[in-house]
Amino acid sequence: MKNILVIGAGRSASSLIKYLLDNSIKESWNVTVGDISLDLVKQKTANHPNARAIVFDITNDSQREEEIKRADIVVSMLPASMHLDVAKDCVRFKKHLATASYVSKEMAELDAEAKAAGIILMNEIGLDPGIDHASAMKVIDHIHAQGGELTSFKSYCGGLVAPENNDNPWGYKFSWNPRNVVLAGQGTAQYIENNEYKYIPYNRLFTQTNTIEIDGYGAFEAYANRDSLSYRKFYNIPAIPTMLRGTLRMPGYCKAWNVFVKLGFTDDTYKIEASDKLTYRQLLEAFLPAGKKSTKEKLIVFMGPEADAEIMSKIEWLGVFEEKKIRLANASPAQILQDLLEEKWKLQEHDKDMIVMQHQFEIRNAKSEIRNITSSLVVKGEDQTYTAMAKTVGLPLAITTKLILQGKINARGVVIPTTKDIYEPLLAELESFGIKFVEVEL
Amino acid sequence: MKNILVIGAGRSASSLIKYLLDNSIKESWNVTVGDISLDLVKQKTANHPNARAIVFDITNDSQREEEIKRADIVVSMLPASMHLDVAKDCVRFKKHLATASYVSKEMAELDAEAKAAGIILMNEIGLDPGIDHASAMKVIDHIHAQGGELTSFKSYCGGLVAPENNDNPWGYKFSWNPRNVVLAGQGTAQYIENNEYKYIPYNRLFTQTNTIEIDGYGAFEAYANRDSLSYRKFYNIPAIPTMLRGTLRMPGYCKAWNVFVKLGFTDDTYKIEASDKLTYRQLLEAFLPAGKKSTKEKLIVFMGPEADAEIMSKIEWLGVFEEKKIRLANASPAQILQDLLEEKWKLQEHDKDMIVMQHQFEIRNAKSEIRNITSSLVVKGEDQTYTAMAKTVGLPLAITTKLILQGKINARGVVIPTTKDIYEPLLAELESFGIKFVEVEL
Repeated sequence: MKNILVIGAGRSASSLIKYLLDNSIKESWNVTVGDISLDLVKQKTANHPNARAIVFDITNDSQREEEIKRADIVVSMLPASMHLDVAKDCVRFKKHLATASYVSKEMAELDAEAKAAGIILMNEIGLDPGIDHASAMKVIDHIHAQGGELTSFKSYCGGLVAPENNDNPWGYKFSWNPRNVVLAGQGTAQYIENNEYKYIPYNRLFTQTNTIEIDGYGAFEAYANRDSLSYRKFYNIPAIPTMLRGTLRMPGYCKAWNVFVKLGFTDDTYKIEASDKLTYRQLLEAFLPAGKKSTKEKLIVFMGPEADAEIMSKIEWLGVFEEKKIRLANASPAQILQDLLEEKWKLQEHDKDMIVMQHQFEIRNAKSEIRNITSSLVVKGEDQTYTAMAKTVGLPLAITTKLILQGKINARGVVIPTTKDIYEPLLAELESFGIKFVEVEL
Repeated sequence: MKNILVIGAGRSASSLIKYLLDNSIKESWNVTVGDISLDLVKQKTANHPNARAIVFDITNDSQREEEIKRADIVVSMLPASMHLDVAKDCVRFKKHLATASYVSKEMAELDAEAKAAGIILMNEIGLDPGIDHASAMKVIDHIHAQGGELTSFKSYCGGLVAPENNDNPWGYKFSWNPRNVVLAGQGTAQYIENNEYKYIPYNRLFTQTNTIEIDGYGAFEAYANRDSLSYRKFYNIPAIPTMLRGTLRMPGYCKAWNVFVKLGFTDDTYKIEASDKLTYRQLLEAFLPAGKKSTKEKLIVFMGPEADAEIMSKIEWLGVFEEKKIRLANASPAQILQDLLEEKWKLQEHDKDMIVMQHQFEIRNAKSEIRNITSSLVVKGEDQTYTAMAKTVGLPLAITTKLILQGKINARGVVIPTTKDIYEPLLAELESFGIKFVEVEL
């Protein structure tokens, strides 16, 4: 029997734990699932004979060490900043690790030690990062094998609500960390276009959007991610003239969201004194120039020529003109906005979420012809437990855990899923779960 | 003989050191001046019999301790972040300290220890902060003594170039830390207006300006400082309905500066790869949307309805449309802009700088009449050594050092110049140097 330790049993761990338990008898696995909340673990493990449910406190060093010692592989669903202690123990006790988080600087520094210990620290093996790497590399390797050259690569991903449950003016509900959605894009987006670096600061990120089309699902709006440059190296396309990674929203979202950016509502760097004594309208007023007009009229003046009925209907629907008390005391503008949005953009019991991803490749083939290919993925959730987000984050983690335990991955050290031995079996098995890319040559 | 230790002999220490040496014989002072550069010290001390010139390395613990032990008072002209080690030694060896910097959190935490040691940690005793506190408190205390109530207080200050040397389209040259000018305003400005908190984020700080007038000097433009709220407490006006502190520039500066803010040129959070391979025009292009127009035409489109000939002439004068190579490699946009501006906005050998300050008070007097008073200060530099900035920063430090050594200040612990025993003799003596406020009732 092999031992798997899963740390964290929150919403996005559902599909991961289900897969591991469903395969545990055939594969001879014991699956230990630990979380601060034993209830959460028990919901997910449901008395499965190969499951062991434990209360797990990541800050308890002796428990963490003991459980990692017992395991053959650890799957960490902790927030990104909390993986490091786990990773260090994995190196010390020579255990593999899998996470869906970006490789942090500190994680990258463990590479040599992990190699020396003969273990895999597999990161970026969720949806984005994760499935995006695997599916892009499959196409890129194929192009290179055919003697072609990639001249442009654009890649977009969004976690949205399914069209049948898209019933609010923003076309958006939370299927993922709300805080990340509110703070999204702060900093400067960097990409390359026709061999020229391009920089978009936060103050105009949501005004410089692209539109993409997905067959059967219509148009989506994309804003640029902060970092489109570093993956040129990992994707083996260091000299590509155009490379852009972006995030998808429904059309019209970005223009309206930009009103909050411009107002200063997404600022998380200071606290509003006694914010629970203010109504939403009073808070909005604090961000608008003084004057005698109504708050709504002032906002229209503030927005200038960009103001239109569509934007105003989105803003108004959130209730920011209402004399309703703010619930949080001494909170930052971003925290207050997040609290409001968590209520308004809540995924309801019967709502389904939806993941949309599209890669756009421009290729100069061996005959020097220019060709365009898109590779697109749409995944809908089944219900509130097996959401599209839980499936697309959890299944790559679970399948890769299996591949590692079966000894099918040769690399050691800090690894991301950009090589054929990983992406080929991973993408093949994901298809059996309906996670399937559609390639179209334009 | 009393011993004074001055740490730092840079540009803004000229008037400080001159005052201390000029008074050293009458007051029986030995003045030790230390800096990394002995040349700089010798220029300033000029073989004065009461001066001792030393090479001083703040990171050398034993030298720092030894010199502080010898002193009765230490005047630190170090950058704000470097005062703390000095302040801790002052507490340990029971020596007074004076700095022109804002009270940091760490400095404030030394208050109880400094009181127990019987010493004064005098901070914010330069121009702004410094003269602003003293001159405002003189009026505020007078209003309160007359039974009046302050209903609005606005205070503005700017370090500019004298009108006779104002010969560039921006009306600005550097008389102070260029880095602070480039990064000015990042964050969110907070103030209070008619009992309502107001917040202006960086993305629109330079578009929401006030105009003020100073007799004989015409109009100036003001943008809000980050913190106008915390001084309500120190000024003994905790419930004032309107309070705003701002920074002054020549009219038209802010609108043009906002182009750089909007472009992202003031961002200091990331490096431009191989920036020394780019020309200024190419860098500007990297912040503009792609297209076939010239860089200048693109910038006009980018600026939208705000574009006018005045703004364009300012931008163009800086040379950002030119095919001239950037000098810094792998620098942030803010560093590149600062390097360019240091060349363009250099105070020339015969240029004089100018300090402008204005307080605007609205008062409800004991008879419930509303009155308006302004208190204004204009100081011009003498030359490149005794600049207005060096005088207005250095003389308050020097005069207060004298007051402390004469035993005329009773407070102990962390102190700022808001009390009568400090501001009265300080403002009186500053007048003898031509640093004199003019009060006008409107």
